[in-house]
Amino acid sequence: LSTESTFIDLMRAIATDPAARGLNDDAAVIEFGNEALILTHDMMVEGVHWLPGADPADVAWKLVAANLSDLAAKGAEPLGVLLGFMLGADDWDRRFAEGLAEVLATYTVPLLGGDTTGKSGEWSARAFGLTALGRATHRPVPARSGAQEGDWLYVTGTVGDAAAGFDLCREAVDSHARLRRAFNRPVPQLEAGKLLAPEVHAMMDVSDGLLLDAQRMAKASGLRVEIDLSTLPISHDYQVLRGNNLESRLVAASWGDDYQLLFATPTRDIPVDATLVGGFWPGEGINLRYGSEAVPLPASLGYEHR
Amino acid sequence: LSTESTFIDLMRAIATDPAARGLNDDAAVIEFGNEALILTHDMMVEGVHWLPGADPADVAWKLVAANLSDLAAKGAEPLGVLLGFMLGADDWDRRFAEGLAEVLATYTVPLLGGDTTGKSGEWSARAFGLTALGRATHRPVPARSGAQEGDWLYVTGTVGDAAAGFDLCREAVDSHARLRRAFNRPVPQLEAGKLLAPEVHAMMDVSDGLLLDAQRMAKASGLRVEIDLSTLPISHDYQVLRGNNLESRLVAASWGDDYQLLFATPTRDIPVDATLVGGFWPGEGINLRYGSEAVPLPASLGYEHR
Repeated sequence: LSTESTFIDLMRAIATDPAARGLNDDAAVIEFGNEALILTHDMMVEGVHWLPGADPADVAWKLVAANLSDLAAKGAEPLGVLLGFMLGADDWDRRFAEGLAEVLATYTVPLLGGDTTGKSGEWSARAFGLTALGRATHRPVPARSGAQEGDWLYVTGTVGDAAAGFDLCREAVDSHARLRRAFNRPVPQLEAGKLLAPEVHAMMDVSDGLLLDAQRMAKASGLRVEIDLSTLPISHDYQVLRGNNLESRLVAASWGDDYQLLFATPTRDIPVDATLVGGFWPGEGINLRYGSEAVPLPASLGYEHR
Repeated sequence: LSTESTFIDLMRAIATDPAARGLNDDAAVIEFGNEALILTHDMMVEGVHWLPGADPADVAWKLVAANLSDLAAKGAEPLGVLLGFMLGADDWDRRFAEGLAEVLATYTVPLLGGDTTGKSGEWSARAFGLTALGRATHRPVPARSGAQEGDWLYVTGTVGDAAAGFDLCREAVDSHARLRRAFNRPVPQLEAGKLLAPEVHAMMDVSDGLLLDAQRMAKASGLRVEIDLSTLPISHDYQVLRGNNLESRLVAASWGDDYQLLFATPTRDIPVDATLVGGFWPGEGINLRYGSEAVPLPASLGYEHR
C-alpha cells in the first residue's frame, strides 16, 4: 500500500494539467473544441484481478466494463477503446477475443486500436490494459469533488453481489448464477450516468467498495459523509446467501467490483433507480450507523490496491 | 509469430470502425467535432522490450517516445498520455518516475491519468502500457496506405544507430554514448511529422526496421517498393563501429527502434532533413539494390513481434 501511494504521489507531482484532475478522479477530462473528451485506462493482471480458471471471455468483459463504468461516472458516451494485449495460449486468446467482441457489441463501442506483445517467459503472469475514450454529454462534467453540505448520497442498483459472486466462483459453486454473473460480467451504468450527470454535485463509480469510495468523495469535496447501513441496497439473492444483518451489510459496503454509480445530489427526485444511503456534513471522514445506532468503522473500508 | 498474427486477425474482425483503419496503421484516427483525434497505445514488457539492468528512466523515456513517434507519423501534436504501471521496487519505480517527468517535460506533454496495479508474485515480469492522444495538424491525416506509383521513398535522420546501441548496452560497453542514447532515448520526430503531413502521400514511423516497414507501406498502398541500400542514411558513428558496406547497411535497414519517419511523396523538395532511399512501382513486395546491383532479400526484414 505504501508503495502504491508513494508512486501515485510521484505521478501527482507530474500530472499538474487541469485535465488530469489531480489523479483524484475516475477519468481525465480534456477540453477539445466545444466538447469534453473523457479518457480512462485500467489494467488487469493475472493472479491479481482474475481467478485461475476464469473464463477468458469474462476477463475481456470485465476489462471493458470497468473502463466503461469510469465513463458512466462522467455521464459520457463511449467513442471507442484501445487494447493492450499480452499473448498467451491460442485457445485462451481466442476465447478472450469472443468476450471482447461480445462486450463491445453489447455497448456499441468500437475497437480502435492497441498493441499486442509477447510475454516474458512461460511462467510470467499476463497483463492487459484498456483505454476508453468518451464524449461528455453534460457540462460541467461530474467530478468526485463537488459534493455540498446537505447533499444526499445515493447509489444505483445493489451492492455486494460481486462480493458474493467472487466467493462462489472461487469455491467453484455452480448455483447462484446471477451473483456469479455480477462478479464476472459487471454492467457499466452508462444510461444512468447520462441521466444523472445534470442532477449531481459529485459522482463516481463504486469499484473499490462503497465505504472507501464514499470516503474518497467526501475527502475530495472537503466534507464528512455519514452512511446508514440499514438502507444499503442489497439484493434478495445476496440476503439469502449472506443474511440481512449488520455484518453482511458491512461486507457488501466494503468489497467492491459493484460498478454502480455513487452520487451526491441536493434533490430527492432521482431520474434512475437509486437508493438513498447517506448524506454530507461539515467536517471530514466517514461515519456509519445502522438505523439510529452508531457503528464503528471496519478495519478495511474497501480494496485499496487496484 | 503465427499466434500474434492469429490474434491480430481476430481483432481485425472486431475493429470494423473506419477510425481503426483496419489495425493497419500506427494510430487510430477519430473524427471529433471539426478535428481529428489521434490515439495510440503501446506496451512494454520486462525481458521483451528492455534489457535486465536497464536504467528505469530510459524505460520510461522509450515507452513515451515510441507512442509520441506514432503521433508524429500522423503529423499530430500531443495532447496527453495515460500510463498503465505495474508496481515493482521503490527505487526502480522512483527512477522510472524521473524519466517519465523528463520525457514529458521535453516534449511538453501532460500526464492525464492511468492506472497502477500490483504485480503477480515476486518473479513475474512487469508490463507497462502507455496511451497517447494527439490532435491532427493537417487533414487528411497521413496513413500507411496512400503511396502512389512514381512516389519517392524518404526517411528522416539516420537508421541503425539503435541497433548498434543495443549491442553496446547488452555488452555493457561504456563508450559510443551517442549510439547507446539512440537506443535508450529515441527522439520522436514530432516537428518533422507536422511539416511533412501536408507533403506526403503516405507516412509511418520506423519502429520495426526500415525494410519491414517499407514493405508494409507498399502492401497497404497496393504497390511494389524498391530500395537502394547505397543511399541509406547511416551515421558516421555507425560506420566506424560496423563498417560501411552492404552487410552493415542491411543490419541498419532491418533492425528497428529508429523512430524515424518513412514517407512517400511525389516531390523532391522536402521541408525536413531526409534522405531519398527508394521509390514505388506497380506490383507488390519489396526489391533491394546496392547502387546498380540487385540484392537478395535477407531472411528477416525487421522485428515482427513487438
